[in-house]
Amino acid sequence: MGSRSHTAAALAERFGLALRGDGDAVVDSVGTLANAGPRQLSFLANPRYRRQLAGSAAGVVVVREDEAAEPGRTLLLAPEPYVAFAKIAALFDPPPVASPGVHPTAVVDASAEIDPSAEVGPLAVVGARTRVDAGAIIGPGCVIGEDCVVGAGSRLVARVTLVRRVRLGERVLVHPGAVLGADGFGLAMDAGRWIKVPQQGGVAVGDDCEIGANTTIDRGAIEDTVLEEDVRLDNQIQVAHNVRIGAHTAMAGCVAVAGSTVIGRNCLVGGAAGIVGHITICDRVVIQAMSLVTHSIDEPGEYSSGTPLMDARSWRRSAARFRQLDALARQVQALGKEKK
Amino acid sequence: MGSRSHTAAALAERFGLALRGDGDAVVDSVGTLANAGPRQLSFLANPRYRRQLAGSAAGVVVVREDEAAEPGRTLLLAPEPYVAFAKIAALFDPPPVASPGVHPTAVVDASAEIDPSAEVGPLAVVGARTRVDAGAIIGPGCVIGEDCVVGAGSRLVARVTLVRRVRLGERVLVHPGAVLGADGFGLAMDAGRWIKVPQQGGVAVGDDCEIGANTTIDRGAIEDTVLEEDVRLDNQIQVAHNVRIGAHTAMAGCVAVAGSTVIGRNCLVGGAAGIVGHITICDRVVIQAMSLVTHSIDEPGEYSSGTPLMDARSWRRSAARFRQLDALARQVQALGKEKK
Amino acid sequence: MGSRSHTAAALAERFGLALRGDGDAVVDSVGTLANAGPRQLSFLANPRYRRQLAGSAAGVVVVREDEAAEPGRTLLLAPEPYVAFAKIAALFDPPPVASPGVHPTAVVDASAEIDPSAEVGPLAVVGARTRVDAGAIIGPGCVIGEDCVVGAGSRLVARVTLVRRVRLGERVLVHPGAVLGADGFGLAMDAGRWIKVPQQGGVAVGDDCEIGANTTIDRGAIEDTVLEEDVRLDNQIQVAHNVRIGAHTAMAGCVAVAGSTVIGRNCLVGGAAGIVGHITICDRVVIQAMSLVTHSIDEPGEYSSGTPLMDARSWRRSAARFRQLDALARQVQALGKEKK
Repeated sequence: MGSRSHTAAALAERFGLALRGDGDAVVDSVGTLANAGPRQLSFLANPRYRRQLAGSAAGVVVVREDEAAEPGRTLLLAPEPYVAFAKIAALFDPPPVASPGVHPTAVVDASAEIDPSAEVGPLAVVGARTRVDAGAIIGPGCVIGEDCVVGAGSRLVARVTLVRRVRLGERVLVHPGAVLGADGFGLAMDAGRWIKVPQQGGVAVGDDCEIGANTTIDRGAIEDTVLEEDVRLDNQIQVAHNVRIGAHTAMAGCVAVAGSTVIGRNCLVGGAAGIVGHITICDRVVIQAMSLVTHSIDEPGEYSSGTPLMDARSWRRSAARFRQLDALARQVQALGKEKK
Repeated sequence: MGSRSHTAAALAERFGLALRGDGDAVVDSVGTLANAGPRQLSFLANPRYRRQLAGSAAGVVVVREDEAAEPGRTLLLAPEPYVAFAKIAALFDPPPVASPGVHPTAVVDASAEIDPSAEVGPLAVVGARTRVDAGAIIGPGCVIGEDCVVGAGSRLVARVTLVRRVRLGERVLVHPGAVLGADGFGLAMDAGRWIKVPQQGGVAVGDDCEIGANTTIDRGAIEDTVLEEDVRLDNQIQVAHNVRIGAHTAMAGCVAVAGSTVIGRNCLVGGAAGIVGHITICDRVVIQAMSLVTHSIDEPGEYSSGTPLMDARSWRRSAARFRQLDALARQVQALGKEKK
Repeated sequence: MGSRSHTAAALAERFGLALRGDGDAVVDSVGTLANAGPRQLSFLANPRYRRQLAGSAAGVVVVREDEAAEPGRTLLLAPEPYVAFAKIAALFDPPPVASPGVHPTAVVDASAEIDPSAEVGPLAVVGARTRVDAGAIIGPGCVIGEDCVVGAGSRLVARVTLVRRVRLGERVLVHPGAVLGADGFGLAMDAGRWIKVPQQGGVAVGDDCEIGANTTIDRGAIEDTVLEEDVRLDNQIQVAHNVRIGAHTAMAGCVAVAGSTVIGRNCLVGGAAGIVGHITICDRVVIQAMSLVTHSIDEPGEYSSGTPLMDARSWRRSAARFRQLDALARQVQALGKEKK
């Protein structure tokens, strides 16, 4: 059996799952219910896909016990099939491990400290007084400036930029094109021209954070911009200077957070939502996609703005009436008074 | 005559256009109606600019036959002047051709296959088992990871990243800063912490696609993220894992498409529009700028959301009434009933 | 005293400010009112933070004269404390100065002209016929293509791309990941397939502009895309081909501006706002965050679109009524008529 082949029985034991069916069934990769073959493992988490289970050729399927009606199939029973699937799938696609050493084409400042177990890839740049800790991977084409720290086991996939004073915790994963530690957008108008307000803070990123491709997180103006531990940011998110994001908060792609805003723990922010500056959002808030948060939120719950999608002709009629909404409401008030 | 000079008669013959006026008129570049000179070619496609035609010093103008009223001017008559202009303009600014070979500063894995007619530019990185086909151009600073294919005649302009398992068809053009094949955003909550769901799919891009600067297209979770042929994406677009975009669909800048959504053929998506995950949009749908698509669409046509721009004072009044819209509607219902 | 230590008296004289308290007080860095120590300078500009002044341990504070009530504290009095603070803070964090010369790992075309006082950093690429003027800094990993100009004293921080025909004025600052001069998004539909319209213009950026991380500014189709002097763009902004942005205009992160639009001087555009193509916005216009500008604006002032944030349940009710808004308004009209 190849090093990435596993029997259903071995998986059941390793992940503490109950087994139904053939414990000797072998899988060596994962697949969707619709397309998996007999040597592939699949899962059923979303009831919408339940009908696909019957016809699936998957060798092993992870399901909740109450979905395990079908006889003759090899099943792993899990209270949270998606979580169990995620853990098993990692066996087939383990994250890369550092190949210790500095690639000969990398340019590393003499004052940088690279742990001997860390990897610095081809054509990477590491600046003065920067530290790269044990087992960290600096991928190809990354540029790390001065006074940064890349914590143990962290990985900058490729072409990531840490501009200045960026400190990453342990096991942080940063995807290509992300820019951490660029100047915050600080301007003051002086006699008709903008002058730049120096940005002297840094960026502090907690353990186990993940930062998506082309996401930007600016350096603080005076103090740091902060991500607490286990914050998960998708691609193309903009985090302005002095923002603080609480532990376990996740944001979908293209969210924009303006300066000095504080976001709580365990929040979920939908794609392309906007959050204005200098406000506070409490823990366990859910913001719907493309909503704009214009004021502080102090109650957990779900929040939205915007209008529903309509065919353009109907939309134009509603939109025209939106302009006159105050007049309409006054007219209704007047009609109500006449009634009395 | 220089290699990039052309007579009106030669252009007429080459592109099958009717000629009016002086067939010996020579042009060697293009210009706008307002600013072109006598050796420049211009065009009139948008009737809004019709008045500029009379005063234009352009040596040759491409127009529709019914716009060709003016005597004494050299004209090329085309049913679609913008299309004819695009083809002629390409003569003056031909796309770059590969200079075969690998630049000495590039870092290419021993297992990569680079076609002898392909170009790998300075400071590029090409990973294990990646294939670069005939005539392809890998521009300066690009990073290509493992198990990718760059099809014949494709061009990565500069500083493009293909992370892993990205397969580009033929004649694909990718602009700087684009990141294809980064991990999809797959997370599961396990005992209060996020765990990462491995992303084992790839990205498949069809022939003749164009992908804008700083656009991101994530790798699929299990199966691939797919762009069919001739898909055109502008800058800063985010395409999440397992999205499928149909042939000839075009999206303007800053669109965000969430995971597993299927978009049809010949759609047009306006700038900064959002499309939620797990929905299906049929062929020939037009989405207006900054609209949010929250449900599947099965009728071709034009769709919008949002509200019109207003001066901020009026807007605040309408916005306040929007909050109370349900109460207002109930009040109107009540007034209507009293009537009866 | 270190080269970056300054007495309150020296700062007062240098910046023309009135001094209260101990002129010998020495500061060597800046801090917030809440956290500054006795050798740090702070400021009070926003009255919201007034209460923090009393408890602050800051050695010196910049305030407006009318906020200077507290005795026993060393103060610098300024009509615009934020402006004065910005100027003083720059003493503690001076912008980098070019280290003249070309790094041995940079790849510079033989026809490029690099001023002897300019710096070209590690692993940068400079293309044919490009000029880098006195004191300019090309940071690590930047890629500059053909026919560009980087004006005197300008700085590309790191990993910036100037694709082609990009001309930067003097003292322009460009942050990592920005892409200037990529092809504009020009397409024409020809017999069911897109054809590319060549983009033959350039990008012209005036003196003292600042361009944020991962911002994209496309090359013009025929003529140039233009930023006048002192334009300030935050991160992840998209500026399409042939846009013109007037002097001193500032845009917050994630704004999208579509093609050929002309924006006036001294405008302020809020985060993630969208501006459609082919329109004109006059001087001194303020656009609120996430608004969509769909038509030309010829009156200075403040403009908005969208709806306010609501809890999701209330929002769904308002949103459902928005769909029926035209019918509701007609019903109100009918009720009004019956009255008469």
